[in-house]
Amino acid sequence: NSKLKIFTLNSNKELAEEIAKEVGVPLGKSTVTRFSDGEVQINIEESIRGCDVFIVQSTSGPVNEHLMELLIMLDALKRASARTISVVIPYYGYARQDRKARAREPITAKLVADLLTTAGATRAIVLDLHAPQIQGFFNIPIDHLVAAPILSDYFLGKNFDPAELVIVSPDHGGVTRARKMADRLKAPIAIIDKRRPRPNVAEVMNIVGNVEGKTAILIDDIIDTAGTISIAAAALMESGAKEVYACCTHPVLSGPAIERIDNSVIKELVITNSIQLADDKMSPKIKELSVAKLLGDAIVRVFEEKSVSTLFD
Amino acid sequence: NSKLKIFTLNSNKELAEEIAKEVGVPLGKSTVTRFSDGEVQINIEESIRGCDVFIVQSTSGPVNEHLMELLIMLDALKRASARTISVVIPYYGYARQDRKARAREPITAKLVADLLTTAGATRAIVLDLHAPQIQGFFNIPIDHLVAAPILSDYFLGKNFDPAELVIVSPDHGGVTRARKMADRLKAPIAIIDKRRPRPNVAEVMNIVGNVEGKTAILIDDIIDTAGTISIAAAALMESGAKEVYACCTHPVLSGPAIERIDNSVIKELVITNSIQLADDKMSPKIKELSVAKLLGDAIVRVFEEKSVSTLFD
Ligand SMILES: Nc1ncnc2c1ncn2[C@@H]1O[C@H](COP(=O)(O)O)[C@@H](O)[C@H]1O
Ligand SMILES: Nc1ncnc2c1ncn2[C@@H]1O[C@H](COP(=O)(O)O)[C@@H](O)[C@H]1O
Repeated sequence: NSKLKIFTLNSNKELAEEIAKEVGVPLGKSTVTRFSDGEVQINIEESIRGCDVFIVQSTSGPVNEHLMELLIMLDALKRASARTISVVIPYYGYARQDRKARAREPITAKLVADLLTTAGATRAIVLDLHAPQIQGFFNIPIDHLVAAPILSDYFLGKNFDPAELVIVSPDHGGVTRARKMADRLKAPIAIIDKRRPRPNVAEVMNIVGNVEGKTAILIDDIIDTAGTISIAAAALMESGAKEVYACCTHPVLSGPAIERIDNSVIKELVITNSIQLADDKMSPKIKELSVAKLLGDAIVRVFEEKSVSTLFD
Repeated sequence: NSKLKIFTLNSNKELAEEIAKEVGVPLGKSTVTRFSDGEVQINIEESIRGCDVFIVQSTSGPVNEHLMELLIMLDALKRASARTISVVIPYYGYARQDRKARAREPITAKLVADLLTTAGATRAIVLDLHAPQIQGFFNIPIDHLVAAPILSDYFLGKNFDPAELVIVSPDHGGVTRARKMADRLKAPIAIIDKRRPRPNVAEVMNIVGNVEGKTAILIDDIIDTAGTISIAAAALMESGAKEVYACCTHPVLSGPAIERIDNSVIKELVITNSIQLADDKMSPKIKELSVAKLLGDAIVRVFEEKSVSTLFD
C-alpha cells in the first residue's frame, strides 16, 4: 500500500506538470537551485518515506547540469527512504556516445547508466533511445517507449492519400523507425543513401525509393544541428517530391538548427516535448506534440506493477 | 615496469603543466571539447595501455562541467586499458554537502566519491578536504595532502616577530588548522566565536584570545563569498589588531567575494592555485602560491609505491 509521487527537476517542468495531471497526483514539492558557487542545492519539502517515486528529467542541454541535478536528487531520495525510485528520462543525453567508434573513446551512454544506478535509481523509463541496445547498458529494469505512434497519428490527422505519401529515413540507421511509421500510415518508404564516392570528396545524396509527386515525411530520432535533415529535404524536392515534412522525437536543435530549418524547404517540423525548447529556439514551422500521456500511462502501469509493453507501439 | 602519464582536463591547465614539469614528464596529449549540443567530447591522442595514469582536475566551478569531464575521461582511460588511474583533485567540489544537516538533504560529497569509483578511478589524491572525514567516503585508496605548510612558509618569509603575531580561526570548525599554522610560526591562536544570542537577532562576533596590537593571520580552507572572512577581519581590527592578513587553500571566490575582499580591512589574501582564478577574479590584494611541487611529489611517490604520508605536514 505504497504511494506514488512524481518530482520534477529543471529540464522539463511543463511536461512534468502535464504528466502529474495525467496521473492525477500533485507534483512533489521540491526546489532545485544553485549555491553561490554554482553547486546544485536540492530541497525535498515533503516526506517520501516508503513511497514509489518517479523523477522526470531529460538530460538535455545544459546536459551536465541536468544530469547532476538528477544524480543528486537520486541521492537525496535514496537517503530519505523512498521505496523505489524510477527515473523518467524523456530525452537520454549522451546516447550518441554509445560505442567506441575510434580508439580511446569513452562510452558515455553506458557511463551515465552506471552513474544513475550508483546514485540510487531502481528503474528507468526512457523514450526513443538513439540505439535500442542502450537498454542493455542498464543493470536495473528499463522500459523503452517510442513516440512514432504519436508522430504518426498527427500525420494521420492530415488525411493524406496513402498513394501520394512516402515515409523517408534520412539515413541507413533509421529505416526501422521509418518502416513503423509507414505501416501506420499505410505508405511506402524511401531511404536517403548518403555516401562518399572517394575520400575528401563531397557526399552524394542518392534516394532509394520513389518520391516523385509525393508528400514526403522525413522521420528521425534526434534533430541536432539540422544539417542532415535540411539537406535531405532539399534532395527530396530535387527528386520531384511535392512537399516535405520532417518529424523527430528529440528536438536538440543546437547551433544553427533553427536558422537551417527556417531556410529549408521543410514545410513543417513536428517534434515532441521530450526536450523543452528554449524560447529562442522557436520557429513558425515547428509543431510540438506532447508525450505526457504516454509517459503518464507508463508511470501508472509501473506503479500498479502491470506490463508497460502495450505502450511500446 | 609501467609508465607514468599525467593528463589535464579544463579546470587547472596551468597547474597541470607545472606539475608535469615538476615530475619531469610531458603532459599526455588529449583534447576535451564540446559537441554542438554541449556534450563533452574527449580525445586521448596517445596510447596509455598498461600505464599508471594521473588526471589533474579540480571540481571547481563550473563544477558540474568539470566533474563530468573527469568522469568521462575516467571511462575513456579505463576502456583504453590503463593499469591504474589516479584522480588528482586539488579542489574537491561539493565537499560542504558532507552530511544531512536537514531532513532529506543529499550527501553529495559521498555521491561524487562513488561516481568517481564507478567511472574507473583506482586512487585519489586530494588537498585540504573541507572535512577530513570525506576520506572515508572513498572505497579506493586516498591520499590527503594539506597546504598549511605552504601558506605558513610564505608568512615565515615575512619575518614577523612571533610575539606580535596571532593565528586566527574564523570559526569553531577551523581551530585545528589554525593550530597547525601557529605551531609552524611559533605564534598563539585566537578564535572568532560567532553566536546568535537569540533567534532572529544578528550574530555577535566575539574574539577568544588576545589580538591587541598584533598582526593577525586568518586561516580557512575555503573562501567562497568572503562574507565571514571580511567580517572577521573587521572584528579583529575593532579588537585592536595592528593589521590583518587572510589565507586559504581554496579560493572559490564566488558572487561578491572580490568586491568584499577589496573593500575589507584585509591587507593581503594569500591563496593557492588549487582553483584556477578566472581573469575577472583578480585583485591587487591577492597573492597566489603554487601547490604544484606538493602534488608532483605525491604523484611520484604514489607511482614509486612509496608512502605519501611524509607530505601530510
Ligand atoms: N553530442 C554529440 N553531437 C554530435 N556527435 C556526437 C555526439 N555524441 C557523439 N557523437 C558522435 O556521433 C557518432 C555516433 O552517431 P550515430 O552514427 O548517429 O550513432 C559517434 O561516433 C560520436 O563520435
Ligand atoms: N556550495 C555551497 N555553498 C554554500 N553552502 C553550502 C554549499 N554546499 C553546502 N552548503 C551548506 O553548507 C553547510 C555545511 O558547511 P560547513 O558548516 O562549513 O561544513 C551545509 O549545511 C550545506 O547546506
